[in-house]
Amino acid sequence: MSRFYAVIPAGGVGTRLWPLSRAAAPKFLHDLTGSGSTLIRATFERLVGLSDTRVMVVTGESHQEAVCAQLPEITAENIILESEPKDSAAAIGLAAAILFKRDPEIIMGSFAADHIIQPIEVFQEAIREAVATAATGKVVTIGITPTHPSTGFGYIRQGRNLKIEGAPHAHHVMEFVEKPDEKTAQAYVADGSYSWNAGMFVAPVSLMLKHIEANEPALYTGLMEIADAWGTEEQEAVTSRVWPTLPKIAIDYAVAEPAAAVGDVAVIPGTFDWDDVGDFAAMARLNHAVDNESVTILGDSKRVYSDKSSGGIVVSDTNRVIALIGIDDVVVVDTPDALLITTKEHAQSVKAAVAHWKSQGDTDVL
Amino acid sequence: MSRFYAVIPAGGVGTRLWPLSRAAAPKFLHDLTGSGSTLIRATFERLVGLSDTRVMVVTGESHQEAVCAQLPEITAENIILESEPKDSAAAIGLAAAILFKRDPEIIMGSFAADHIIQPIEVFQEAIREAVATAATGKVVTIGITPTHPSTGFGYIRQGRNLKIEGAPHAHHVMEFVEKPDEKTAQAYVADGSYSWNAGMFVAPVSLMLKHIEANEPALYTGLMEIADAWGTEEQEAVTSRVWPTLPKIAIDYAVAEPAAAVGDVAVIPGTFDWDDVGDFAAMARLNHAVDNESVTILGDSKRVYSDKSSGGIVVSDTNRVIALIGIDDVVVVDTPDALLITTKEHAQSVKAAVAHWKSQGDTDVL
Repeated sequence: MSRFYAVIPAGGVGTRLWPLSRAAAPKFLHDLTGSGSTLIRATFERLVGLSDTRVMVVTGESHQEAVCAQLPEITAENIILESEPKDSAAAIGLAAAILFKRDPEIIMGSFAADHIIQPIEVFQEAIREAVATAATGKVVTIGITPTHPSTGFGYIRQGRNLKIEGAPHAHHVMEFVEKPDEKTAQAYVADGSYSWNAGMFVAPVSLMLKHIEANEPALYTGLMEIADAWGTEEQEAVTSRVWPTLPKIAIDYAVAEPAAAVGDVAVIPGTFDWDDVGDFAAMARLNHAVDNESVTILGDSKRVYSDKSSGGIVVSDTNRVIALIGIDDVVVVDTPDALLITTKEHAQSVKAAVAHWKSQGDTDVL
Repeated sequence: MSRFYAVIPAGGVGTRLWPLSRAAAPKFLHDLTGSGSTLIRATFERLVGLSDTRVMVVTGESHQEAVCAQLPEITAENIILESEPKDSAAAIGLAAAILFKRDPEIIMGSFAADHIIQPIEVFQEAIREAVATAATGKVVTIGITPTHPSTGFGYIRQGRNLKIEGAPHAHHVMEFVEKPDEKTAQAYVADGSYSWNAGMFVAPVSLMLKHIEANEPALYTGLMEIADAWGTEEQEAVTSRVWPTLPKIAIDYAVAEPAAAVGDVAVIPGTFDWDDVGDFAAMARLNHAVDNESVTILGDSKRVYSDKSSGGIVVSDTNRVIALIGIDDVVVVDTPDALLITTKEHAQSVKAAVAHWKSQGDTDVL
């Protein structure tokens, strides 16, 4: 594990969690389950047990202050600030390139800043197996054991057990498959060899870079140029010149899928509870109401009155009183400058509201 | 019409319109239809055409400033301030007693401050007939022609035409009947001789007082004691001593029903549009959406986004943006310190929320 270095890309806004999650205060800076920790803090705490202080964060320039406040243990050299979002291949690739320059033997693991995982011990054991597998020259992903035939995730099809020492559950990955329709998802779950792609990757930095170089040579060249300057007087100048020119591409297309095609990918089953808190329906699920008859309340429950309503969720971020009468499965998110009212069924449509405000130029509420 | 004096009891809070209508800013101080006038101002303007400046208002002490701002034409001698609410018999009875002392020939007309009526001309013609009828020694009510078998109003059963000069539509009232069940209401509407009791009364003040004296002698004595002192140096002292001791009773029980029992009541059909804006479903009805697919918005419509929702009403009293997704017939009332979310179907249940805050001691939001 001494080769292991954790990387946390903290990028996405979490549009489906608007108006709780905002451009200025994205999902990873919130405590969505009442745990007392923001999601990024909880992510960090899951990882320090594996990598000690070898944790690197990639985030937007505007989040620097908030991220540093959440993760005071992280030193400046381990915070990569994006002047503009360039998708996951650039973010994770730059971390790989910088770490490679420090030590080409490093095995990196990339973990989203805004997922919920427990128990920690089960997660950590899976990552230990992933690192052992990566050390054999693999890009290793964690395949979440499906709890239902979700159409919202991509799937990983696993093949034979790789029989790696220290990684008894490591399997070969046959392929990554895109988000399926309902029927296909049911077939995947019934089959038993498919798991959810949660976007976690563990791999030697050298192998990550090899695949980026092969599939996205322009991205590779740019990343290496920045990495060469990293920590020198040139860092600022080179980064601000090169970063905006990098192609936008997801790590799945730049590394995972082509690597799987050449047989370079393995999977460790993730048997822990995992949730990417994709929308308010997920938040309601993760924050159980006291009983089936009631509404989940995040905030001061004494200021919420609910009558003839059940199954919904109220997120109160103001001091206002809220009266809720006769609407089941309602989602109410009350913030000082924006109010969302929908139902769990329509939770995925919240992004349409964000698109509307954007098109109308109401950038202050995004 | 020179004997006519209009009285506007401006009392009720309008609990079913919470949180728009509040103890501190009750229904009659709001413009519920976007007309540009508050309900009390519109009520006054309907009446000045009949009684000129002979308009008296009875309201709570805490509303004095707001009422005077709305009705600057009304002089201090024509504003009766209640130190505490004592129901309609005391409010209307005190107006009758004070007017009787000024001129025992006065015919008063009592009209709620928070109803919506149009066209004004049709209303005024009905009142002229009511005054002509009252002059023959009758308590005259206005019976609203039912538009549907409402179970929310009491009904007036009319008898023979009274054949009064200047009041061709005046009919004898057989009885007042309480709010009926659905089936009974249907029978009333089919029958044709029933109309809605909208709580409007026109009567000689002497006759009003005669009935109060007969039915509620303690109330009568108290009212006359205050009226004797009215306009003198004793007014304050006597009112503050006597008012709190008066019995609480509705004018229906103290005057209208017993007067009908002795054959003293007449009705003029009210063929104008009338609405007491009883709840937010009524507000939605009175404020048509642009089309059937949309949501009625009272407030800045640019700050409301609605998707897959129709038929509802949003009352926005803040600068917040509101996103509404996938809820039909929703009622949203967004105010700085309180938020209501319900459906038109549950509009009548809003009072339960007010009762809840009251029981919890949250008097600031009532």
